[in-house]
This record gives sequence, C-alpha cells and structure tokens, in this order.
Amino acid sequence: MSISAFTHPFLSGLLGDAETAQHLGVEADIAAMLRFEAALVMAEMKAGLVPEEIARKIAAISLSFEPPMQALREGVAKDGIVVATLVKQLKAAVGGEAAPFVHMGATSQDVIDTSLMLRLRSILPIFRSRLTTIISQLDDLDARFGERPLMGFTRMQAAIPIKVQNRIAAWQTPLKHSVRRLTPLESELPLQFGGAAGNLDQLGDKAAEVRRCLAQELGLGDEPQWHSQRDLIAEIANLLSVITGSLGKIGQDCALMAQMGKDIAMAGGGGSSAMAHKQNPVAAEALVALARFNAVQISGIHQSLVHEQERSGAAWTLEWLLLPNMLMACGASLLLAQKLLGQITSLGSDKPD
Amino acid sequence: MSISAFTHPFLSGLLGDAETAQHLGVEADIAAMLRFEAALVMAEMKAGLVPEEIARKIAAISLSFEPPMQALREGVAKDGIVVATLVKQLKAAVGGEAAPFVHMGATSQDVIDTSLMLRLRSILPIFRSRLTTIISQLDDLDARFGERPLMGFTRMQAAIPIKVQNRIAAWQTPLKHSVRRLTPLESELPLQFGGAAGNLDQLGDKAAEVRRCLAQELGLGDEPQWHSQRDLIAEIANLLSVITGSLGKIGQDCALMAQMGKDIAMAGGGGSSAMAHKQNPVAAEALVALARFNAVQISGIHQSLVHEQERSGAAWTLEWLLLPNMLMACGASLLLAQKLLGQITSLGSDKPD
Amino acid sequence: MSISAFTHPFLSGLLGDAETAQHLGVEADIAAMLRFEAALVMAEMKAGLVPEEIARKIAAISLSFEPPMQALREGVAKDGIVVATLVKQLKAAVGGEAAPFVHMGATSQDVIDTSLMLRLRSILPIFRSRLTTIISQLDDLDARFGERPLMGFTRMQAAIPIKVQNRIAAWQTPLKHSVRRLTPLESELPLQFGGAAGNLDQLGDKAAEVRRCLAQELGLGDEPQWHSQRDLIAEIANLLSVITGSLGKIGQDCALMAQMGKDIAMAGGGGSSAMAHKQNPVAAEALVALARFNAVQISGIHQSLVHEQERSGAAWTLEWLLLPNMLMACGASLLLAQKLLGQITSLGSDKPD
Amino acid sequence: MSISAFTHPFLSGLLGDAETAQHLGVEADIAAMLRFEAALVMAEMKAGLVPEEIARKIAAISLSFEPPMQALREGVAKDGIVVATLVKQLKAAVGGEAAPFVHMGATSQDVIDTSLMLRLRSILPIFRSRLTTIISQLDDLDARFGERPLMGFTRMQAAIPIKVQNRIAAWQTPLKHSVRRLTPLESELPLQFGGAAGNLDQLGDKAAEVRRCLAQELGLGDEPQWHSQRDLIAEIANLLSVITGSLGKIGQDCALMAQMGKDIAMAGGGGSSAMAHKQNPVAAEALVALARFNAVQISGIHQSLVHEQERSGAAWTLEWLLLPNMLMACGASLLLAQKLLGQITSLGSDKPD
Repeated sequence: MSISAFTHPFLSGLLGDAETAQHLGVEADIAAMLRFEAALVMAEMKAGLVPEEIARKIAAISLSFEPPMQALREGVAKDGIVVATLVKQLKAAVGGEAAPFVHMGATSQDVIDTSLMLRLRSILPIFRSRLTTIISQLDDLDARFGERPLMGFTRMQAAIPIKVQNRIAAWQTPLKHSVRRLTPLESELPLQFGGAAGNLDQLGDKAAEVRRCLAQELGLGDEPQWHSQRDLIAEIANLLSVITGSLGKIGQDCALMAQMGKDIAMAGGGGSSAMAHKQNPVAAEALVALARFNAVQISGIHQSLVHEQERSGAAWTLEWLLLPNMLMACGASLLLAQKLLGQITSLGSDKPD
Repeated sequence: MSISAFTHPFLSGLLGDAETAQHLGVEADIAAMLRFEAALVMAEMKAGLVPEEIARKIAAISLSFEPPMQALREGVAKDGIVVATLVKQLKAAVGGEAAPFVHMGATSQDVIDTSLMLRLRSILPIFRSRLTTIISQLDDLDARFGERPLMGFTRMQAAIPIKVQNRIAAWQTPLKHSVRRLTPLESELPLQFGGAAGNLDQLGDKAAEVRRCLAQELGLGDEPQWHSQRDLIAEIANLLSVITGSLGKIGQDCALMAQMGKDIAMAGGGGSSAMAHKQNPVAAEALVALARFNAVQISGIHQSLVHEQERSGAAWTLEWLLLPNMLMACGASLLLAQKLLGQITSLGSDKPD
Repeated sequence: MSISAFTHPFLSGLLGDAETAQHLGVEADIAAMLRFEAALVMAEMKAGLVPEEIARKIAAISLSFEPPMQALREGVAKDGIVVATLVKQLKAAVGGEAAPFVHMGATSQDVIDTSLMLRLRSILPIFRSRLTTIISQLDDLDARFGERPLMGFTRMQAAIPIKVQNRIAAWQTPLKHSVRRLTPLESELPLQFGGAAGNLDQLGDKAAEVRRCLAQELGLGDEPQWHSQRDLIAEIANLLSVITGSLGKIGQDCALMAQMGKDIAMAGGGGSSAMAHKQNPVAAEALVALARFNAVQISGIHQSLVHEQERSGAAWTLEWLLLPNMLMACGASLLLAQKLLGQITSLGSDKPD
Repeated sequence: MSISAFTHPFLSGLLGDAETAQHLGVEADIAAMLRFEAALVMAEMKAGLVPEEIARKIAAISLSFEPPMQALREGVAKDGIVVATLVKQLKAAVGGEAAPFVHMGATSQDVIDTSLMLRLRSILPIFRSRLTTIISQLDDLDARFGERPLMGFTRMQAAIPIKVQNRIAAWQTPLKHSVRRLTPLESELPLQFGGAAGNLDQLGDKAAEVRRCLAQELGLGDEPQWHSQRDLIAEIANLLSVITGSLGKIGQDCALMAQMGKDIAMAGGGGSSAMAHKQNPVAAEALVALARFNAVQISGIHQSLVHEQERSGAAWTLEWLLLPNMLMACGASLLLAQKLLGQITSLGSDKPD
C-alpha cells in the first residue's frame, strides 16, 4: 500500500526522490535512534556514570540491534510513540545488569527529536548540493542565451523586452539566498537531550558534561533541551517551502513560455493519452504543484508552535504528519528543477531585438 | 520506504487505517482504471460503436490485466500521468484489430478521476458506518452517565455545572450532521467522461448514450464532464475535515478532562519511556493532531479550485498530493475515536451535585 | 487607519464591497445584538417570565440604544467579548426594576453568534443574487459567442479546438451548484441560545418555549444551542471559498486568454504607470488573488473546529479574525466577476474552424 | 465600517495595536510613496539626469503633497494599483517642464514595494523592542519565582516536578532567537528599484549610480530589483508567525495553568456576562488565537512565491491581503503578552517540593 505520492509505485516516477526517502524511511529512523542510545551510554561512561564494560556492550548491541517491527507498531498504538517499546526491547537484548543503564536519564523526545536532527544533517547537504547544481545550470543557460531578447511580462501582459539574463537572475537569486541560509542551519542542528521533564534531573551534576559529550559524539550542536520550542522546525520548514516556492516560480514561468510557444524550447516533454501532438511541460507543472503543496504544509508546522507545556502529543504528532512530506516535496522539486533546466534547449528569441 | 505516517511500519499502529489504505493503494487504483476501460468498451458496444466480440475481448482482458509497474512509473515520469502508458500496455495485451478500440473516445482525466470516484464510493460508506458506530457509542455513554453532573468550562475556566448529556450532545450533533451530509454525496458521485478536451468529440452523436451506459455500468452519476470543475472535490474535502475537526474537539475535551484528573476515567492510556506512572491520553491527542492536519490540507484543495483551462497539470497533481492523505486522516480519526470512546469507563462526577 | 484591503481608502476601489461591508460593520453588529435583547425579552414576556410593561420598555430602549463605543472597547479589552459591557450599559439605560430582566437567561455567546446569523441572513441572499447575475451574464456570452471555436488547452498546451460554450459551461456549472447550496443554508441559519453553560438552566421549564418564540421573532431556525459545534461555520466558509475559487478559475482563464492575445477581447483593462500601451486584466487577476486568499483562510476556520469544552475563547476569537474577511473576499469577488464578464467584448475566434 | 478585528471600534480593545496600525495606514503609505518619489528625483539629480532646480521643486512638492483620495480609489479600481494615478496627480501638481521628470525611470512596483520596506523599517524595531521587554518581564518572573517547584506536564498529564525556571526558559529562548533574527533583517531591508521591466532600462549607464544614491537617501539596502522574488517577504512572514507562535505557547500554558487553578495567579482577568465569579484568561486565549491566525496566513504568503514572470498582479495582490494583517497580529500579540505577563502575580507552588 502506498498512499503518499512521493513513494507511490508509479507516481514516484514524477514526484519521487529515492535518496531523500531513504533518510526518512523507517530503517534510517531506527538506526538513528539506536545511534543515540549508543552514544548516550558512551557519554555517560565518560562522565563516570556507567561502567566501561557495560557501556561498550550496550553501545555495540545498540548499533546492530534489529527490533521486531510488529512490536514497535503495537507500542506506538499504545503509547503514541515508539521509544518505550524500543527501549524495552533493547534492554531485553542487552540483558542482565546492563539493562538499567540503557536509555538512562533520557526520554522519548530526546530519542525521536535527535533522530530527526541526525537525518536532517544528512538531507540538508543533499538539498544544498542540488541547489548548487541548479544555480550552475542557470549560469550555463545564462552563458548560452543570456544576451538574447525576451519579452518581459507584467500582470500577464507583454510589457517591454528584457534580456534572458534578467529572467534568469530573478530565478537564480532566491536560490542563492537559500544556499546561504542552509549553510548555518546544517552546522547548528542541535542535540535534543532533556530527560523526563526537560531538566536532566536524573543525571545530577553530570548533566552538562554528558550532554556535551553526547552532542560531540553525534556531531550535533550542544544546546539546552528545546523539545517544547519548535521555532527551529519552523525555520527549517520555511526554508523548505521557500526553496519549493522559488522553484515553483521557475516552473510557472517555463510553463507560460511553453504555452505561448516561443521564447522557450524544451526536449522531452510529456505525452498525452489522447493527443499525440502535444509536448506537455510536465516537470514545470509539477514544480508548481510542489510549491503550492509546501505552502500549504507550512501552515501546520506553524500551528504546532503552540506546543503546550513540557511536551504536546498533539503538536508533535502533527509535525510527524507534515515535516517528512515537506522534505520529500523539497527533494522532489530539486530533482525536477534539474530535469526541467536540463530539458531547455533554447531561451529567448534568436532574432535581433 | 514509508514516509507517510499513515502507512508507516510503526507509526501506523497509531495513525493507520488498513481498510481505507487498501482502497487508496496502487492495486485498487489500477483495478478501478481498468474497470473503467472495460465498462467503456461495453458501453460503446451497446451504442454500436464497437463490435461485440472485440468489446468482450477488451473487457475481459482489461479486468484481469496486470501492468508492469516499472513501465507505469517511467510513463508517469515522462507524461505526468499514468494513463498513456497503461493504455499503451493494454492495447498491446489486446493486440490486433481490437487495439484501436481500447480507451476509444476517452482521455487520461476520465480514467483517473473516475477511478477516484469509484474508490470514494467504497470509502465513504466505511466512514459513514464508523460515524454511526461512534454515535451509538455516545448514546451508550449518555445512557450510562448522561444524568451525572459535569463542571462546564467556558474560556478554559470552570463555569457552572452542566450534565454529562450536555457535553455528549455537543460531541454527537456535528457527527449526525456529517452522516446526513455523507448520504447524498455517496449516491451522487459522478462519472468523469469528456474525452480529449471535454466535449466527447470522438463519439459524435453517440456521446450521450455512451456516457449514460458507462455511468450505469459503473454505478456512478451521469453528469457532464467536470474535470476542470473541482467544487465536488472541495465539498468532499470539507466534509472529511469537518469530521476530523468534530472528532478533534472530542479528543481535546477528553485530554483536558484527563489532565484535570476528574470527570473522566479511561482504561488503556499510553505509557512513557521515562515515567511508569503516567497514563497518557494517546488517542485523544492523536484526534487533535489529525483534526489540525486536515484543517491544513483543505487549504490546498481549495487552492486547486483555480484549475486553469481544460486541464491543469499543476492543480490536479496538487490534489493527488493532498486528498489521499485527507482520506487517511479521516479514516484513522474515526478508528481512534471509536477506540477512545471505548476506553472511557466513567464520565462526570458520581457524587451528587 | 485602514489596514484591511477590503475597506482601505484606495485599495477598496479594487477589492471593496460596500454593501457587504455595511452588514459586517460595527453599527450592524450592535444593532443585531440589541435586536436579540429586544426579541429575547419579548419571548420571555410571552412565556410569562417578564411583566409586559417591563418587556415592552426593555425592547423599545434596546432597539434605539446607542452604546458609547469607548466603553465597549474597554470592555472587550477586559473581558475578551463586548457583551458584558453592552448589557451593563443597557441595564443602566433601562434602569430601576426593569434592569434585572435585561439579557435574562442568556449569555455572551448567544448574543454574538445570533448577531452573526442575523447578518449572514442579510449577506447570503446578496451573494446568491450576484451569482444569479453572473450566471445570466454567462448565458448571454454563450448566446453571443457559444458556437465559436476556441482552442482547448490541457496542461498549459494547446490541445484540440473546443467551442466557447464548453468553456462557459465549465465556468457556469460550479456557480449553479453554489446557488443550489446557498438556498437551504439561508433558510436554516439557526438561533444560538443556550445561556451560561448551554443548557438554558435559568429558564427552567420555559426554556423550550422561549427559544422557539425567540427564533420565530428573529426569523432564525429553532435549534438546540450549538456554540461549541462550529461545523455550520465551516460549511459556510467552505461555500464562500468554493465561490471565490470558482470565480478565480474564470479569472485565471481570462488572464491566460488575454496573455495569448486572442480568443478574448476586453474593454477597460487597467493602465500601467510606466507603459501606456498595456491593458492589464486587473479584475481577472484580482479574482485569482481573492480565490487564493479564501483558500488560505478556510484552513483557520477548520482549525477552530477544535473548540474545547463549552466555549473556547481562542477558537472563537480566531473565527472573528477570519470569517468577516472571507465574507468580504467573496462579496468583492462576485462584484469583480460581474465587472470582468461585463468587460468581455468577444470570446473565441470569429474565423471558421 | 471596520471589518478587521485589528482596527475594529471595539474588538481593537483586545486585538488592536495603534502604533503598528499607524505605520500600516493609508497616510503612512502615501507618505512613504511620496518620499520615494522625492528621493528618486534627488538621486537622479546627483547623477546628472535632472536639473537641480527641477529636482528640488519635485522633491519639495512630493513631500507635502496630499492626493485626493477618491481619485486614488478610482485609479486602483481601474489599474489594480495606485501608482499610476498618484504619479499623474503629482505631475499635475508639479506642472510644466518639471512634470516629465516625476517618477522618471521607475515603475509602480518600485514605489509600492519600497513603501512597504520603509514602513517595515519602522515597524520591526518596535517589535524587537517589545520582545526585549517581554524577555525582561520573564527574567523578572524568573528572579521572583524561578526556584519554585512546578508540576511538569507531558502529553497533557502530570509528569514530574520541574522548576518554574525550566518553564520560563522554554518560553524565553524562542523569543531570544527571534530578536537575533530581527536584527539583520531590519538592517538589510532593500530598496526595490527596477523600472518598467526590472532592468532600469530608462536610466542607461546611470542606473547603478541612481539606485545606490536612492538606497542611501532612503536608508535601505542597495540590491538589484527583486520584485518577482518574494523570498524576503516569506522570511519576514515566517518570523512574524514564529513570534506569534512562540507567544501563543505562553498563552496556552498560562490558560492551562489557570484552568487547573494552581501554579499561576493572575490579576485582572476578564469577566463574564452571565457568571460573575469567573476570571477568564482573556489575554492568554487571544495569544493562542493570534498564533493560529498567523499560522494560517503564512500559507498564503508562501503561495505568493509562485510570482509569475516580471510581475504577478495576482500574487502581489494576495500579499496585500495578508501581510498587513500578519504584522497587526504580531504587534497585537506582543502587546498582549506584555499585558499577560504583567498580570501574573505568582507562578509555581509556594510550598516546598
């Protein structure tokens, strides 16, 4: 069963992004959660809270543990989150005197939010790299066609002639801004670590040390717990939607140029089941759809800023329903933009002004 | 890979709905599209447009055809829709002189929108039935606890005592409205059939007859083509979100009663990985999350009302990204509400006013 | 100060609707609230709860009362709603032994929601009448140009020729659906009347009688209180946005036809500060903007379905921020569509196919 | 007539913000547009494009010009924007040989978007200052009550005791982030200046010089025209909604504490028209409503990223419908948060753990 267009057996041909999907899939999530548990116990070992032998044992088992999926599913049905069951299973796998040291001082939110951060650290550089490729493609189109005349359109009416390079600059500049915004975001993705109610109460005076070690081990920023503070998630969602929106404008412009039948030539547009003569600007339209999709989803991410008390099951679950799809939409949009720009064989008029 | 929470290997424990998912999955979609092709050729046979032998052959092959998924995926990548490839494959399977009669007079939108209508005709009665169950559960709670006092809260402050039956009536009435709204919707789901540009130009003076037969064969309403008119989709989306919103209010009320620790008792709340003593109102919170999710998605369905010209690739693709998720959210919400109400062991105070 | 574009000193030239605005303005709101108070005391008189002389006095004073605005403003600042202050002022105006009978058995929500219903009963028929006019304008365009050829466009590409009447039918049908939806809504707008916590506790066994009389007096439906059940508001919002979305499609189609410079001729498009030669399709673009505006706002109306307990200050206040703007957008859109269609001097090609 | 709650005669008692409203009102807009015209002609004088006497005359008249509002309104009705009429009026006021130098080389978008930037430069520091006040109020509450115990709540259930300072930190940190985000935004607000189709074609080789002078004169950043690139607007909208969302969480938490009747004491809550004993957390609830309002609106700002070609009337008009309201909601939210925090007389328990 595949409801989501992003991973749908055939719709993913248009809207898929296998690379991003891999980081958002259940295997990557479980691996990241277990990596958290392994790094946690090692950080606690360094702080003198866990005997070395036990810590190494827990870490080793965590990193190779394969939890039974059906049990996880039942756990979520009961608890609303997967961590209680996952930890229980891991404790059983570890066994004996080591078991109490598993997940010590941590809570579900630490595991789930940190897993998200670890996977964003993998995904965001992919997006940045794709943006860089698109910027280069636009440079290339500029080099080839930039000096050509192009009719400028304002309010959907022919205005005065501009150059192709003017249009390309309007496409490219927001993408450069997004690259500039991505870079610090990537390097500042924070560890989430607060324990049961956010104050690391179980770790006593070792709390700061364990958190610092754990952040370092995982390559994440060492920040106070932020579970009920979702402004970073909103920042990320905003950037994802700015990217898809900026690419959506490119798509809309290309579709409009294609509609008017001059100023753009494209290879490899889509066919129709009823009209053999058509060359549909499929990628261009999909960029518009993905832009509008993320523009819808971001509203829900902002609704989840009203995250009550120390942890809101409702607001957090809402994020789970939205953020993976926003990431997929952004990834798919970047792939489609690469494809679309690669299909362009001519921009502007090859006749003199 | 499972990005969507609704079909996620473990999150679906909380947010899944296998029954609805089945109707939205790729197999059901392909089956419905092929059912359209089979019914179409039979209707065209009855109108004297296709020889009987050929029509029966095409219909039989269509109903048992299993298209190669990879080819469909590549077709979507190229065309933005699956139908061109599916029809091509079906023509090849049919072969010979029959091939030109496959999909005759129809276009992609006819196949895809009709497939959606066929599957909605399966899904909406499921939702209606679940609503009816929930209404009965509320009747039962009313019978057991309706006369008990309950503190009424306005503006999040204790106001004056009401009866449990007053609260239950506020929960139940919108659900009854939704049942009343579902019934005509179900019976009026229309066939989509317009051909290449909506005017059934290839069928000449047989167009009306073929459409009527086709509608009857598929059990759908016989309506003029409506592909670029998406107000029905908006109606359906509105109803889905009214249902999840109405259930979300129930969830929010139950979570607030549980927080205050009186006026509700529930069996089987969720556990915590860090705090063994807690009984979290997991289903109640998930109802709130699903209500807010659909309240977000409906915005995109309404954006897609701006469906330009005879067919908008962008607006249509946007619907594909949104509507299946809204249906899943509604289905999951109905299941969770049943579960939540089933967990309630007491409402209101058992002490005299 | 005028922040809202709908009532802005100069933007209202494009986006205004004085007729609708009048019903949504503060004077109409206060008048409707006072009308509720007058009708309430008369209904209570008929039920034998208020002496006739006192009831007539209260009713008369209510209908001519002009509350001091600054006091109302301070009341809202303190209470979040205007009614406590308004009632206090009205009691003072009535004075003496009559004062305790003012607002007897009612609560703020009764006054505010009933005032909304009374004003919707004025506004919705205006919208229906405008829709009817637009449908007639389309009939007229059909009569004049319906048989002409028009290039059909699918996926933003020229497909095959259709007739102008095909396009007009796609514009007109959803508007007819909306008219059909408006009619029952108008006649079923319900009284809101529940008292402090919704159960009319202060009116004892006269509650049903008072409510029936009150509903009749105000020309509203006699329904149990529905304050925390906002599905009707969602229905109305959905219809408003379906209307603006359907008109937005017309606007988008006209703008695209105008862009391609054939198939449509319009008189009186807008000018440019820099380019004297342009004739911008201003009304067409504004229709698209208003469609997307309402498609955004409807999300918030659905968020407010999660209306906790007996009255949610948060969810209710959110409605106040959204619904008036949705009504204004719908009203403005209907006016603009009339204007746009009136500007069309030609549709389709006047040359043979 | 006052439809908008933000400037409504009585609702503004709760939801108003006179200071922000002033900058968004029509007078401030016209003043900023005329300031642009004055600065433009002075910059063109410095570049040798306009004789000094003429430039000084135009600048002086621009700065004191009071255009007739009715004419502006009619201009917007016709052109969709105010600038063509405003410039025409200004030219008439200037008269004679000076008239052709008015607005020379500029276009409507330059005037309107630059006016927006000028007014944002006034508004954003107000918001930053209010945020700083709120952060101080929280510091003060922390100093007074930070060490007290408070029951931590996760998933709407009592979890384990935390300290008041933990809750305050969760409230305060996102506000500090927002201050950090506001500062560069304020200083980088860019001039919009591109001329008819964005390439300053009328200014020839003086284009860069004029733009630099104009930017300096207006105190805005000197950037290439960005009219069809709306990512900056999305950034600003995101920040506005992050602020209201962060304050909405504070509101929700306070309302929940108030509901449970311990852990918070507040002076001056709102009254009820029916229940004299209640003290409603009016400001807290309004913060939630404003958070959800902006979370809705941001979706539309992101929709307008699909800003087609050189200027989209539809996407731009959509922004006008949304951004002023988002600014008002943010301003009102900041005032309400100050009020709410000022009302708190106690947080946490004054009894030992």
